[in-house]
Amino acid sequence: MRFFEKLERAAQRNGSLLCVGLDPDPALMPIEDVAAFNRAIIEATRDCVCAYKPNLAFYEALGEQGYATLRATLAAVPDAIPTIGDAKRGDIGNTAKAYAHALFDGLGFDAVTVNPYLGGDAVEPFLEREEKAAFILCRTSNPGARDLQDLAVSGGDGSRPLFEVVAEMAARWNTRGNVGLVVGATYPEELRRVRQLCPDMTFLVPGVGAQGGDLAAVMANGLDANGGGLVINVSRQVLYASKGAAYAQAAGDAARRLRDDIQAERRRSRTGG
Amino acid sequence: MRFFEKLERAAQRNGSLLCVGLDPDPALMPIEDVAAFNRAIIEATRDCVCAYKPNLAFYEALGEQGYATLRATLAAVPDAIPTIGDAKRGDIGNTAKAYAHALFDGLGFDAVTVNPYLGGDAVEPFLEREEKAAFILCRTSNPGARDLQDLAVSGGDGSRPLFEVVAEMAARWNTRGNVGLVVGATYPEELRRVRQLCPDMTFLVPGVGAQGGDLAAVMANGLDANGGGLVINVSRQVLYASKGAAYAQAAGDAARRLRDDIQAERRRSRTGG
Repeated sequence: MRFFEKLERAAQRNGSLLCVGLDPDPALMPIEDVAAFNRAIIEATRDCVCAYKPNLAFYEALGEQGYATLRATLAAVPDAIPTIGDAKRGDIGNTAKAYAHALFDGLGFDAVTVNPYLGGDAVEPFLEREEKAAFILCRTSNPGARDLQDLAVSGGDGSRPLFEVVAEMAARWNTRGNVGLVVGATYPEELRRVRQLCPDMTFLVPGVGAQGGDLAAVMANGLDANGGGLVINVSRQVLYASKGAAYAQAAGDAARRLRDDIQAERRRSRTGG
Repeated sequence: MRFFEKLERAAQRNGSLLCVGLDPDPALMPIEDVAAFNRAIIEATRDCVCAYKPNLAFYEALGEQGYATLRATLAAVPDAIPTIGDAKRGDIGNTAKAYAHALFDGLGFDAVTVNPYLGGDAVEPFLEREEKAAFILCRTSNPGARDLQDLAVSGGDGSRPLFEVVAEMAARWNTRGNVGLVVGATYPEELRRVRQLCPDMTFLVPGVGAQGGDLAAVMANGLDANGGGLVINVSRQVLYASKGAAYAQAAGDAARRLRDDIQAERRRSRTGG
């Protein structure tokens, strides 16, 4: 099944646009065993998410144990829920192929995040398999996003920020219908602009919660014409909802609240309320 | 010792600006054991390089064995020769910290390559340790480099390509003297321009050899005022010089020829010949 179809089905089944970011940080975790922690989080949240998104950095930081831990984590995700490898890779042709092989075949991710700075031929190896998908970094959620992504690019009859050019470029790269965009929740005005440029594309939206992004603003500016097209990623607010013995239950409660908040804002946006 | 000092000493000792890219590709390798292959290559080339640069993609593509293979490879590099982890990572603050920890502490690289698309706060975790260094992607060697990196950025009294803005940004990020740039050999005119903008910075230059970059053009356009400031990376032309039993000797011969060719072009450029 193609990634965006799998995503849509999981979103329908669980009534949820929530993606849980599986970013294990030993300094914040209530137990030491990362794979066991992730399994407990997945077990507690699997009925209220549309996807899981492990960020590779947190597994690479585990050293020798990182790969096996990530494999064990992915094995715990139910088959019907898609996985997004937040790797933000970007490299030239034959090297990008090696990354695509590592992420799609070795680890088995359904989709990945990709950095656009190296251009179309660096993105292409992640799009060649139609059943897999790539979310292109467009406007990220961090303060430094402004440094490059807001630079005014001139052309035609005026100038516009680089992230808008990237959004349109990604739309051109989307010949197989398996391209999405990463647009941070912390910049709702930019999110609105990207939605205008790419009305039918799915956006992976990090930055709600610990990073300060506002859910109502995200839904008001980011939903597509069908009231979907968003994957709202939350990590710390779910994973570290409690440091106590009942951390998994707390994570499940936090995820259900977020799922419900998202649905409420979604309805509000659709009814123009 | 700080990275750029270690690099300078290795370059002086071996009379070489050549960096060998340790990018093991099972389809091209004469033997199956990647760590043994890399050890043989290092043994055969250690007297004629200034650095080694493993690209992480080729190790991640090995799956479960990737991490240990990369560790074994790095352990075979003599202490006096610096290592550059070609990871092209780029992520937001706490995630970039996890990547820096994985690459500098876990794997022990002396320097890494970093993607600038996420801006200054995503680069900063790679620069906090003064003895380590980061090469910021500026103008890459692939055809798609043009897609984003050549976009005309307006500002002040005109416009200039994005990669020039990135070069100047990297110079501003270089408050500790541990920033370099990645500039592809395949675009000598762009290399000349970046050298004008950053006269004192060290450039990591991929793209000579298999990718078609011309050594004479690189040296004529890229050397700094002291006849240095370049790290010329070559991978396939050295690693796969022969598929026969004497592959390591062939790699050593290829590396020595490249070292000597680089030195000859360097002298020619300096004497204006």
